[in-house]
Order: sequence, then C-alpha cells, then structure tokens
Amino acid sequence: MGIPSASYSITMRVHLGADPLGIGRITTAVGESAGTVVAVDIVESHPELLVVDLTCNAVDARHADAITQAVGRIDGADVHAVSDRTFLLHLGGKLEVASKVPLRTRDDLSMAYTPGVARVCRAIAANPADARKLTIKRNTVAVVTDGSAVLGLGNIGPEAAMPVMEGKALLFKQFAGVDAWPVCLATQDTDEIVRTVELLAPGYGGVNLEDIAAPRCFEVERRLRESLDIPVFHDDQHGTAIVVLAALTNALRVVGKDLDAVRVVLSGSGAAGVAIIKILQAEGAGQIIACDRNGVLHKGREGLDESKRWVAEHTNPDGLTGSLRDALAGADVFVGVSGPGILEPADIATMGGDAIVFALANPDPEVDPAGARRHAAVVATGRSDEPNQINNVLAFPGVFRGALDAGAHTISEAMKVAAARAIAARVHDDELRPDYIVPSVFDRGVAPGVAAAVRQAAGAE
Amino acid sequence: MGIPSASYSITMRVHLGADPLGIGRITTAVGESAGTVVAVDIVESHPELLVVDLTCNAVDARHADAITQAVGRIDGADVHAVSDRTFLLHLGGKLEVASKVPLRTRDDLSMAYTPGVARVCRAIAANPADARKLTIKRNTVAVVTDGSAVLGLGNIGPEAAMPVMEGKALLFKQFAGVDAWPVCLATQDTDEIVRTVELLAPGYGGVNLEDIAAPRCFEVERRLRESLDIPVFHDDQHGTAIVVLAALTNALRVVGKDLDAVRVVLSGSGAAGVAIIKILQAEGAGQIIACDRNGVLHKGREGLDESKRWVAEHTNPDGLTGSLRDALAGADVFVGVSGPGILEPADIATMGGDAIVFALANPDPEVDPAGARRHAAVVATGRSDEPNQINNVLAFPGVFRGALDAGAHTISEAMKVAAARAIAARVHDDELRPDYIVPSVFDRGVAPGVAAAVRQAAGAE
Repeated sequence: MGIPSASYSITMRVHLGADPLGIGRITTAVGESAGTVVAVDIVESHPELLVVDLTCNAVDARHADAITQAVGRIDGADVHAVSDRTFLLHLGGKLEVASKVPLRTRDDLSMAYTPGVARVCRAIAANPADARKLTIKRNTVAVVTDGSAVLGLGNIGPEAAMPVMEGKALLFKQFAGVDAWPVCLATQDTDEIVRTVELLAPGYGGVNLEDIAAPRCFEVERRLRESLDIPVFHDDQHGTAIVVLAALTNALRVVGKDLDAVRVVLSGSGAAGVAIIKILQAEGAGQIIACDRNGVLHKGREGLDESKRWVAEHTNPDGLTGSLRDALAGADVFVGVSGPGILEPADIATMGGDAIVFALANPDPEVDPAGARRHAAVVATGRSDEPNQINNVLAFPGVFRGALDAGAHTISEAMKVAAARAIAARVHDDELRPDYIVPSVFDRGVAPGVAAAVRQAAGAE
Repeated sequence: MGIPSASYSITMRVHLGADPLGIGRITTAVGESAGTVVAVDIVESHPELLVVDLTCNAVDARHADAITQAVGRIDGADVHAVSDRTFLLHLGGKLEVASKVPLRTRDDLSMAYTPGVARVCRAIAANPADARKLTIKRNTVAVVTDGSAVLGLGNIGPEAAMPVMEGKALLFKQFAGVDAWPVCLATQDTDEIVRTVELLAPGYGGVNLEDIAAPRCFEVERRLRESLDIPVFHDDQHGTAIVVLAALTNALRVVGKDLDAVRVVLSGSGAAGVAIIKILQAEGAGQIIACDRNGVLHKGREGLDESKRWVAEHTNPDGLTGSLRDALAGADVFVGVSGPGILEPADIATMGGDAIVFALANPDPEVDPAGARRHAAVVATGRSDEPNQINNVLAFPGVFRGALDAGAHTISEAMKVAAARAIAARVHDDELRPDYIVPSVFDRGVAPGVAAAVRQAAGAE
C-alpha cells in the first residue's frame, strides 16, 4: 500500500490523563495502524493532563484518517485537533517579494524611487536593451500555465494550479537563483494565452510553460518562440526530454549499448513524447517506435491529429504495426510517458537482453518497477521512493540559468542536448550502477553544470 | 538651482600622488562646484599613490559632470572612473522572489511540491475560494502599467517603466508587507490591457493601476472594477486624491475653515483631478472650479472629452468662465495637478485670506513654493525637499493592506475617505502647523493606521 511519507503528514493535538504510559499507548496505536511517528511534542504538562502534539506520516489521506481514529480509540486519549502539515505549509502561499536594495532613509528612497529612478527610466527608454541591466528582467522567468493539465490532476484551472507554479518558482530559486513568478491564466484559448504572454514579456527574461494540455501546448510554444526575443521552454516537453536523454545515455553506458543501435519503444505521444523523440533523434537514435493507446503509430494509420501525424512520419522507419506489446518484443529500451499499469512485468520479459525500462507515469508507473527489475537491466521511474528518479528539476533550473546568463533569445536543440550531457556526466564512471544512472535532485552541482553547458552551447551559436 | 541630493549621487575613483593635501584639494573642488561630499574612502595607499573613492551629491546630471571636471582639473588628481550610485543600485533590478518555506530535505520538497502539493491543488479545485488561504493570492498585488504616463516622463513604454513599478513594489512591501509584482504591458490598447489583467487575476488579490494615461485609465479602471472580484485601484487617481483630502483636512484645521464653505480651484483635469473632485465632494466640498490649459471648465464649453464633460457638469455650480487666474481671485484653496510654473507668486496674492496652495506638479510645482508662501497660509508640494510633501506612499500601502485583510472585492469611496481621515489624524492637534500638515513618509505608523481604517470601512459595507 505504499510507504508513509511527509507528503501525507499530520499533527494531532492529543489530551492524555495521568497515565504515565499514555504516550506509549498512542505511539503504539500509530505504529499498529502502519503510520510512522515523526515527533512527540509536549505542549502542556499538568498532574492530570498532558497536552501532546503527535506528528506522524501516512500513506494517503484515508490512511491518515485511520491513524487518527486509532489514536482516538485509546482509553484516556482525546484527539482535539488534527492538522495536515502540507496544508499548514501552504497557508498564505509559498512565495514572497523581497527587496534587493536598502530602503531605510530618504536617500535610499530618492535613488530607488522618485526622483532618482527617473534617470534610470530615461536610460532604458533611450536604449531598451538596458532593461536587461537595470531591471529584474534578466533574472526573471514567468512560469505560465492555463491550468489545463496540472500534474496528474488534469484540467483543474488556474487558481488550483497556483500551488504547483509557486512550488516551481521555489525550485527555480533554490537550485539556480532564478527569480520565477507564477502566471496562472484564466483562459484556455490558444490565441489569448499567446497574446497575454507576449504582452507580459517586457518584464521577463524567459518563459517557462507548464502543465498546458496537448496539443494546445505545441502551438502556444511554437508561436511564442516565433514572436518573442526571450527563451520560451515548455518544461513538460523539453525538461522531461532532457532528463530522459541524460538517463538513457547513462543506462546505455551501464549495458554497453549505443543509442544509434538500439530499438526504443515509446508509450505516449503527448507533450513529453514528441519532445523525447526529437531529442533522441538529435542525438542519433535510429529506431523509435511510438505507441498511443490504440497501438503503434505508423504512416498508414488514419485519424491522427497533427502532432501524432508528425510522429508517425518521423518514427517507425520499418512501418511496424500492431500493439504496444507487439512493439516491445525484442526491443532494447522502453520509455513510458503515458498512464499507470499498462504493462505487466511479463511484458518486459519479452524485450531483448539487458533491457532498459523508463516507466515515468506519475505517481503510478506504466509497469510495477519491482516486477520490471526482475527482467530488465535498468529501471527508472518518476517516483522519489524508487532508485533512478527521472525528475525535471535536474534540468529546468540550470537550463534557464544558462540561457539567461548567455542572454540567449531561444533555447535551441543543441542547448538541450548540452544540458542532458551535463546531467549524465555528473554520474562518474566509478559511480555508475544500474540503480544510479541520474544524480540526486539534491545534488547542488547539477544546476551549475547544466548552466555552464547551456551557456557554452548558446555562445557557440 | 536646487539642492544636491542622493538621487544624483556619483562616486569617482581618483588617483592622487604623494601630496598629503591631495584629499583636501579634491573635496574643496567639489565644494567650490556646489556639490556635497558624502564620503571619502581610501581604496589603496602607497607612498606615491593614493586611490580614493570620492562620493558626492549633485543637483542633476549636468552638475555631476561639472563636479567631475572640477576634480579632474586639480593638479595631481586623475579621475579614473565615475559611477552613478543610482545606476549602481539598479543593476540587476530591485526585486527578488523569496521562499517562505524551507526546502532543504526530501520531506520539504514532498510537501511544497510533488507529490504533497497535489492535495492542496485538489482542495482549491473543489473550493476556489481556498486560493486566498493556500496560495500567495491574498497578499499579492499586481502593479500594472502600459508605460504611457510614467512619472513626469510621459509615454516611455513598458520596459522603461519597470524601474518605477519595481520601486512601487518595494514600497508596498516596506510599508505594508504587501507582495507586489510589476506587470508592464506591451500594449496601450484599452481592450488588451483590460483583458490581460482579467486573465492574470487568478494569481492576485488586488490590482494597482499605475501611470496609465488619461482618459484610457478611466475606462480601464471602470471595466476592471466591473469584471473582477478583487480590488482595483488606480493610484495616480485615488492615491493622490486620498492624500490631497488628508492634507486639505489638516490645512483647513490650520486656518480654521470648513470644507463645505471654501472655494477650491483645481488646475488639471487628468486622472488625479477627477478623483480629487470626487473625494472632496464625497466629504462635502461645495464649490470646486476646475481648469485645464484653456481655462475654467463650465457647462457651456464646447469640445470637451467625456471626462472633462463630466467635470464641467459636476463642478462650477455658478457657471464661472474665464482663465485659471480669473478663477483664483478670492479663492480659498488652490490644488494643482497639472504642469510646472503656470502661476506666479503674485497670482497667489489675489486669493482670499489664509489661502491654501497645493502645487503638486513634479518635480517642478505650478508655482514657486517659496514665493507662494509669501502670500498663502499653507503651501504643500510633491517635493521631498519642501515641507508638506503630498506623497501617495502615505496612502496606497495601507489602503491595499486593509482591503486585502478585509477580503474586500472593491475599494469604495468610503474606504478612500477613511484612509484620508486616518492619514490626517496621524498629525495630532499639538503637532499641527502650517509646515506640518501631513505625516512623514517614513512614519511607520501611517500604513497600519490607514489599513485599520480601510478594513473597518470595508467591514461596515
């Protein structure tokens, strides 16, 4: 049933009587309910009353309820309040705007605001390029969504998307010092999204598109790349593609195969799928077979939308037809960016020797990773509780850091490939193992390495 | 020629020889050029070479050049670099995005971002009003401009407006803890401005319109007030009007007159003028005569645009005609929100006894304040180097703090009047003087007082 984690963590305020074994009884109740006790904090102590804050991790919301009820059933224990730590953390939001300059005296004010600021305005009016020097533009990225494809939650709208975009902004700052700001738009109309971002662009040095449903995301990105002179990057596509390429590079190192010689089967032809195809082909992948829920995409299939038509025409050179399972037989690599549980471990057994399986659907992978590991040489997922987590945070902070520092107007295919190579190179030869093909998301060296590689690639263009 | 100030402050790097009087010579040169020495910092000291950073204030850019040249003419002094402190302060912009939550461990990440954040998103999707609790919305204000009327600089565009909007955001944070974010739009089309702000609204708890030219600003504000459920406030109109009402309240206390008995002559019928008329009338002002550059606005005047037509029909009950000077004869109060030097001190002499003069054009008032003080009982300007500075920063931080805390959907006339009264009340009876009718912009009690008054007024509605 999964492992209790901080993402489902609750704090109960429990009143206990004089019984000196009270604390032991409630922590035992948590353990017997399969929860994990994180902390016991005494709030008040009296001869006949002990007020305790009991914090514990659960697997999910229902499990948290079960734990609470188990504690409440203990004789002499009253649960007075239950607070959810994740919700507590989100109260009031996760971001604030801070000043980089002092503002204590009249002199400070006269430089940062009127009248001194007028000269700075005039300098930018005379030379608009100075906006990159004299405003926040050069370090600031808009994290733009329409709320149409948020995490695995689907079309939940712009308000509900805010916590994710705020979280994304935190990661930008934490890993790469980039100031990112959430832009959650109250429209899902392609023209309106494009136009709004164009109108906002003066204040930003880059645009990170996020959680916009396919195929709208393709057109939004294409049009903004054409019209704006700042980098535009759809993280669900390109962030994922970069980390997949990095992980695949290292997985192939583990099994001693070359990208141009392997057969890759891809499940999912949404935003991430198309970008993965493009970056793998840019690195020389020969045979890619892409599948959607109706099976293999090939030139003869009818009723494909524009992006699937593109996929059908640029992959599957031998014109293979049939199901995902058919395609998988004898394949070297499986990459899933689709949905949970579409494969059984036995399907992995039909792949070629030293198979590589990236089952990236979140939170539930395309195939049970433990089962897959029985038949594959290397298994990676999107989960933080499994080895080899394919996580976009390895890519996007460094990619934007590098692009901003280079003053790049776009993020090219070469810059993405450079980012992937930098991520892969972070795992040294003597560290490389089947269960360590990508660096940890907490490896503080990743983002600077990616930034340097991206900056260099931008400079070379 | 004005007073040297920090807003024109430069630092020269000067190389001096062995002469022990070198520093004295260069500081004397600054003084003889009418500059003010702020600091002398020794950077390097050698027997034959002293490297000095000489910081001094000037009146304007030309004066700063003159000072630099005077220093360079000193025997044995070489000016190697001149840096402008205001520009140095603006390098890289003035704002950053900061995290309000820790992000050190996997547990932190799993609560602030995936997978924990998904529950918070779901809660908001189920109840969108929770966005005010669980995101930055409730403390966040968009500072929106189209760059069409920035300070006194005119239509300099969105990039050049950024330093002002960043400065405004600093003031929001500093004085009222409000997180404000600059939104500088690459359009001056009313429909596009309105639509863009509507689309951005999910992420904001309020909208501060700034430096948008009249009459466009009226329509933008009116339409956004109708369509949005968060407060919309055009600071150039209402911030100015609030502080003018506060200052006029106290100026009338000084001279012992009542608002309903005085004749007010207003010069300027732009954004601020109309708002001043409305708030003064809401407080019971009887006679207001408004003038534009063609003279008194009256019902018989032809060719008036929509907002001037409104003014003509709601002021000047006796149908006065003629010039601004004609209107001024015998008047009790002059309020100028127009342009520099349109009146002579002698014109003030034609006003009634104990005249009140607010000459708010910036940086150069409608009439020389020293000259005006010879004939008026109370004189106020927008300048920080004169007594009685009418500065919007007395109003907008507290107004938004109060509106956000009240969860208000709009900022009503009653809330604005409450703000003005709170500002006026900050100057106690025993403090009130002709040269002290408004509190200092650095009085940290103003914003909380305004916020409390606005919150209460919002609650009463």
